[in-house]
Amino acid sequence: MYKLALLAASASALSRPATKLSATATAPAPTWDDHVAIDAPPETLCKGLDGNDSMRRKFEVMLRAAQNKITSAVEELDGEGTFKQDVWERENGGGGISRVMSGGKVFEKAGVSLSVVYGSMPQEALASATERGVDRAAGMKPGERVPFFACGLSSVMHPRNPMAPTMHFNYRYFETDGGVWWFGGGTDITPAYLFEEDMKHFHGTYKEICDKHDPEYYAKFKKWADEYFVIKHRGETRGLGGIFFDDQNNKDPDTHFAFSEECVNAVTEAYLPVVAKRKDSPFTEKEKEWQLMRRGRYVEFNLVYDRGTVFGLKTGGRIESILMSLPETARWEYDFKVEPDSKEAEIMDCFKNPREWV
Amino acid sequence: MYKLALLAASASALSRPATKLSATATAPAPTWDDHVAIDAPPETLCKGLDGNDSMRRKFEVMLRAAQNKITSAVEELDGEGTFKQDVWERENGGGGISRVMSGGKVFEKAGVSLSVVYGSMPQEALASATERGVDRAAGMKPGERVPFFACGLSSVMHPRNPMAPTMHFNYRYFETDGGVWWFGGGTDITPAYLFEEDMKHFHGTYKEICDKHDPEYYAKFKKWADEYFVIKHRGETRGLGGIFFDDQNNKDPDTHFAFSEECVNAVTEAYLPVVAKRKDSPFTEKEKEWQLMRRGRYVEFNLVYDRGTVFGLKTGGRIESILMSLPETARWEYDFKVEPDSKEAEIMDCFKNPREWV
Repeated sequence: MYKLALLAASASALSRPATKLSATATAPAPTWDDHVAIDAPPETLCKGLDGNDSMRRKFEVMLRAAQNKITSAVEELDGEGTFKQDVWERENGGGGISRVMSGGKVFEKAGVSLSVVYGSMPQEALASATERGVDRAAGMKPGERVPFFACGLSSVMHPRNPMAPTMHFNYRYFETDGGVWWFGGGTDITPAYLFEEDMKHFHGTYKEICDKHDPEYYAKFKKWADEYFVIKHRGETRGLGGIFFDDQNNKDPDTHFAFSEECVNAVTEAYLPVVAKRKDSPFTEKEKEWQLMRRGRYVEFNLVYDRGTVFGLKTGGRIESILMSLPETARWEYDFKVEPDSKEAEIMDCFKNPREWV
Repeated sequence: MYKLALLAASASALSRPATKLSATATAPAPTWDDHVAIDAPPETLCKGLDGNDSMRRKFEVMLRAAQNKITSAVEELDGEGTFKQDVWERENGGGGISRVMSGGKVFEKAGVSLSVVYGSMPQEALASATERGVDRAAGMKPGERVPFFACGLSSVMHPRNPMAPTMHFNYRYFETDGGVWWFGGGTDITPAYLFEEDMKHFHGTYKEICDKHDPEYYAKFKKWADEYFVIKHRGETRGLGGIFFDDQNNKDPDTHFAFSEECVNAVTEAYLPVVAKRKDSPFTEKEKEWQLMRRGRYVEFNLVYDRGTVFGLKTGGRIESILMSLPETARWEYDFKVEPDSKEAEIMDCFKNPREWV
């Protein structure tokens, strides 16, 4: 989820002065009452003032096309499941389009969610919301809140078959009213069992795109993913990585845009063939349980470490959009240990010691 | 889990200078290598220096007796499952005895874990580890770390039958080397379906004990539980409460001890008859799914809000002891809404608006 959950967060929560969510004798009311459900997506979730030629609109248009392409391809592969769409707007602008497939034939749960957020945050929050704490508050007076625009597409897909990997992606564009902008994103994969050829295909697809844009991108963004998706208390990664980047603004905006566009559109090519290949694999009950335990780890990462998720939960985001990343089912067994030389031990070794795949 | 997870936390993590767990390209090694497994529990996990007549030893002895009593009673009720015992010690003193039943006939997962911790923490951490931020660093120089002793018994039990509630308790005693001491604890219940008579029995058992000790206790500690066990992002409580208290040191230590002793020993009487009554109740698949969704909420509370769990995970505790509180299975459905006037809606109303049961 990373940054997108932040996008799914309530703009009003971001723009209202930070209040401590204190526990009271009566449980507090849900905080996302400013997300107003609407029937059909408007032509744009951006504000008129942003201008038709702005990067804001351009990015939204690009992501909406990608959302259509990806959800269509997933429905086609699934053969039975369909995406349920929820559209919402917010009083002060922005909104979102969540699409979630539950109970598909191939996919247990798959969500692809678009968010457009107009908010403002304290300069410190803006600094900590960026990966490297780069100063994004240029031009602001000390103590002044920073109005920002953010647009992103976020997705997690959990297939049923334990041989088919879970996949997550998130592509986003940020802009402050002070004119500071940056791109972020990434796609990463989380198998329960290792098939090297699948990892070569997935990583290879992204390496090819990266190489086309910048010879340094793949090595840098692959490492970034390995460093970010770590379940620290387990001393292991969530999955087998992919690419992850943030704070990208050292090139022409259109150049960054083109990279993001290619990455988000490559999701179908990088991921769906792997699912197609594994969706009907035979598996044992024990293998299913291992998959569910890895989903438990997925839950641990998202609820404990994922910055966007934690931020969203604590500031009153649209909960269902934030937590659509959680698997339908997860499992925790006390003190579970993989058997030596087993297939489970093989992939655990990769979670403990990230490898190069291409 | 609250404070006990903190007890299950690695003493060395507490006593070593706080280091930032930074993500690296290689996932960091597990941090609980100083928990040395031993075959059988020693006569005491306290240090000889503590003295045989100290409250430290007295509390440990009392909790170990309670652990025996409770695990025996749970095994008897289950009829099939048995507790697996893990004992560990730490280099600088202290250790623990975890007992976990997995895959019982009645209980999906039940854990009862004793911990004795010798550690030291920054004065700020000590302040934030106590419920009301009371100054527990009396006598310490500014900036000096505070050596402490802590002993507690923590438990979570998840029955299989969706009509039988989950239960959690935790009783603990803290002492700093400066001679400051306090008691904390509580028992709370988390049903998926409401049976008022069960809640009257559970709360009634604890009210009776409270009333015997102090006429103000039940109202105060019941409210404390309602305020603590809140899933803030959902605007709902985790369950239907019970009692919760911390920082108790305004009476004679033996008086607080007697209250803790009675509370921890009442777990069998307050909880097990409810499970016995509901364990064979008929239920539908839909009701089982609702139970699993409530378990998902349990996971959300423990991983996002529970102070002890979050603290333990981030400072290198014995992970399996900290996370034994998680259910074996949990479920998340996108945008699930209870049907009006259903049994699920009935209990949701209690989660949104905590009630008085006795």
